[in-house]
Amino acid sequence: MTASTLLSRIRVVLSHPTHPGNIGAAARAMKTMGLSRLILVRPKRFPDPEARARSANALDVLESATVCEDLGEALRGTTLSFAVSARLRELAHPPLDARSAAAEAVACACSEEVAFLFGNETTGLSNDEVLMCNRLACIPSDPGYSSLNLASAVQVIAYECRMSAIGAEFARVGAPAMALAPHQDVENFLAHLEQSLQASGFLDPGNPRKLMERMRRLFLRVTLEVEEVSLLRGMLSAWDKPRSRGKNS
Amino acid sequence: MTASTLLSRIRVVLSHPTHPGNIGAAARAMKTMGLSRLILVRPKRFPDPEARARSANALDVLESATVCEDLGEALRGTTLSFAVSARLRELAHPPLDARSAAAEAVACACSEEVAFLFGNETTGLSNDEVLMCNRLACIPSDPGYSSLNLASAVQVIAYECRMSAIGAEFARVGAPAMALAPHQDVENFLAHLEQSLQASGFLDPGNPRKLMERMRRLFLRVTLEVEEVSLLRGMLSAWDKPRSRGKNS
Repeated sequence: MTASTLLSRIRVVLSHPTHPGNIGAAARAMKTMGLSRLILVRPKRFPDPEARARSANALDVLESATVCEDLGEALRGTTLSFAVSARLRELAHPPLDARSAAAEAVACACSEEVAFLFGNETTGLSNDEVLMCNRLACIPSDPGYSSLNLASAVQVIAYECRMSAIGAEFARVGAPAMALAPHQDVENFLAHLEQSLQASGFLDPGNPRKLMERMRRLFLRVTLEVEEVSLLRGMLSAWDKPRSRGKNS
Repeated sequence: MTASTLLSRIRVVLSHPTHPGNIGAAARAMKTMGLSRLILVRPKRFPDPEARARSANALDVLESATVCEDLGEALRGTTLSFAVSARLRELAHPPLDARSAAAEAVACACSEEVAFLFGNETTGLSNDEVLMCNRLACIPSDPGYSSLNLASAVQVIAYECRMSAIGAEFARVGAPAMALAPHQDVENFLAHLEQSLQASGFLDPGNPRKLMERMRRLFLRVTLEVEEVSLLRGMLSAWDKPRSRGKNS
């Protein structure tokens, strides 16, 4: 598989970007590394002349960018997604560095769609946004000053993806054997799990104790396969069925 | 030797930069990776409010930048210097990629001063400038569009220097913060899961369809944490409870 095919399956998602100049600069950063699919979740200003100016000759990437209303829409169709963040978080996946994340992204892109998600310039990513993704990716930076410009962060991730992809061109280590579950199927499973936990009484909507965040963290971290999601859904349905005391036990 | 000592011996030289915004953005890019020594050869406008604005909080790097009249002055005191260029040249050193260049730079910085030289935004480096350096370093980019923004190029080189300086083992940005579940706890959970699946009717002991093997594969792959096992056990206990038709559902 060629590097450009692999890179064509990796999308860059910018959540709530404030400055149109950064959108243009991100498009340029992507194009230098062979990435082309840019998705914007509720950008403050887009399209905008400043985005065009800063994109230099990457206008094609900018003009084909998709604008979405929410992150779920932006991640639709992906199988593996990485939240890129400078901050470590308590309730999140263990972080990968940018190089390891890119290597996993490119390996997955042999057969699947992959996303890297970047947060707002000032506020970064929310915990909810991080927990919509399968992985947390961190760019190693100086602990005393870790504030990469948004487009610079895109540049480093895109560069690492390209480095992995051109390596992969020559040495393919083999695609994941099992089909991984699409993002939406995992979301549907989590919604079903929440219902079942409420029905069982274990989840009290009045005092949820971050239970669903913890379950989301577990089941996104493991990168569920298609068949696993279907088994888990079947198990939930069986548990959902009303049973009288003593029956089947 | 610490990473910060190594990085303190690597300087970034910008030759004839046109846009003060790029100087500020380069200072910011350097600081995120622990580089601090910026040298400007005949900048078009410096100091400049745009440079300050784009430097974000890397004003210290900007304010301690040195302005030189020529490249010879900028390279004074160095032992090893790298010309960073997108173009391959006939009359130049064979190019190293950014990663190999950074590795050599950091190794040399154990005892010597090192420089990375970046050219003007439009014209790049002249052949004379390239031939003032010991090495030619290229950032692998898409052959159809290799025009990295100046500060983005500085970001990639600075990032590779930091990755080399901290070494692969420390590049892992932190171990999992949560305590992992001991083997026996995971086994006990799987035994409980099997019981619950039988009680629910989903697992038929007469026709198990490798269900437990599949669940074992999933839950061992994810490396469960102590708290996750305890939540999963709690969920199973809640589902185990007999419920009459319609109650809680």
